[in-house]
Amino acid sequence: MIPEIEKHRSIRDYLSKEISSNIIDKIVRAASRASTTGNMQLYSIIATTSEEVKEKLSPCHFNQPMVKQAPLVLTFCADVRRFSMWCEQRGTKPVYDNFAWFINSAIDTLLASQNAALEAEANELGVCYLGTTIYTASKICEVLNLPKGVIPITTLIVGYPKSTPELTSRLPLEAIVHYDTYKDYSPEIIDKIWCEREESEETLALLKANNRSNLAQVFTGDRYKGDDNLAISKSYFDVLKKQGFFNQ
Amino acid sequence: MIPEIEKHRSIRDYLSKEISSNIIDKIVRAASRASTTGNMQLYSIIATTSEEVKEKLSPCHFNQPMVKQAPLVLTFCADVRRFSMWCEQRGTKPVYDNFAWFINSAIDTLLASQNAALEAEANELGVCYLGTTIYTASKICEVLNLPKGVIPITTLIVGYPKSTPELTSRLPLEAIVHYDTYKDYSPEIIDKIWCEREESEETLALLKANNRSNLAQVFTGDRYKGDDNLAISKSYFDVLKKQGFFNQ
Repeated sequence: MIPEIEKHRSIRDYLSKEISSNIIDKIVRAASRASTTGNMQLYSIIATTSEEVKEKLSPCHFNQPMVKQAPLVLTFCADVRRFSMWCEQRGTKPVYDNFAWFINSAIDTLLASQNAALEAEANELGVCYLGTTIYTASKICEVLNLPKGVIPITTLIVGYPKSTPELTSRLPLEAIVHYDTYKDYSPEIIDKIWCEREESEETLALLKANNRSNLAQVFTGDRYKGDDNLAISKSYFDVLKKQGFFNQ
Repeated sequence: MIPEIEKHRSIRDYLSKEISSNIIDKIVRAASRASTTGNMQLYSIIATTSEEVKEKLSPCHFNQPMVKQAPLVLTFCADVRRFSMWCEQRGTKPVYDNFAWFINSAIDTLLASQNAALEAEANELGVCYLGTTIYTASKICEVLNLPKGVIPITTLIVGYPKSTPELTSRLPLEAIVHYDTYKDYSPEIIDKIWCEREESEETLALLKANNRSNLAQVFTGDRYKGDDNLAISKSYFDVLKKQGFFNQ
């Protein structure tokens, strides 16, 4: 397997060592080589290194220390603005301010971000994706001055790892692959594909820490609560409309 | 740069040579190593090799010959169903049938798909992403038996290349990177970042073939027309609701 893919783990603890601009360029160049809809490159990468802007981004990511600790915060944004401006400047009428192009540009953005993540790792760096990006997208738009046609999709923290955790486990392949068509899960298969993780030391420690009797309770009751999920859904969809991706 | 990232090009012409199950496993395993929200792995990969199912998928991808020509079609689907079934089976109440979790699961799906693409390329295979996946998502759900909680995001054609085209050009890095915060584009910058592509041999050939006077006309008038964009927006958003990602 490609070594960076095989060895990937999320790094949450970073050295203060800076990243050279040469390496930042390599990361961004790798991002730009990813497949993109019609070669339109419907994304922008906001590469934040200044302490001042990282300070403002920090609460958008629930003050996780790595945002200020790591030297580089890459906010990956879907961007139909640049392309639309070019179309208008050439006397044509772009119609990319709608949901289809939110999806197309989000796809472009995420293929680029994964190239960037792997290329960072190929340069001895560690990375961590921040799911908080969609929780606080409205505030991120403000901090990063994102105009209409641009919306944050994900954030990649990049820096030299202070320590390297163990690889995390994954479900067995049979859990995620379906041959030819989707084969729905029976209760027996659900039990089988989760059993190794449920019985792991890691899970037992987690249950103790959260005072829960099974792992699913940690997800639904502690990590990702129903009311929070619905609030985030509404707020991100509002941002999507406000940034001009739902004029339909 | 990671060689697979540097050398990536979309392959549209394949040999009939089959892919061993060992290599398919490697590709899927690489997908599963990508970062995933809370290690929930909110995706399913439909690995289609049967002629019968590929035949049915073909019109979903506008009958592009590579769908039937290539030995493997990977349809990457956002999937909150498996995780929700597990939660319910453990007596908890999952609330993942909303827009936030459409986004979270789409992110998981696309990071996994890009790992798969690169790992395929590391095994001498070629790939091509199909944007048509969101155009005809309703039909794809039918063909692949996708239940509620599962929605197709992208498709990766995989096979041994019959020929290898030139690398495609990309905008200069300054076009896609913004330092610290977003710096909006001036008309001069728009001209500058597109000028190399607009003046390329490839563009000149395209203008001649489409009988257009500039490249933007090809995008807005031939490739991605306004009415089509709006129709796709509506149809994909309908599928999203129907598959249970908008109960909010």
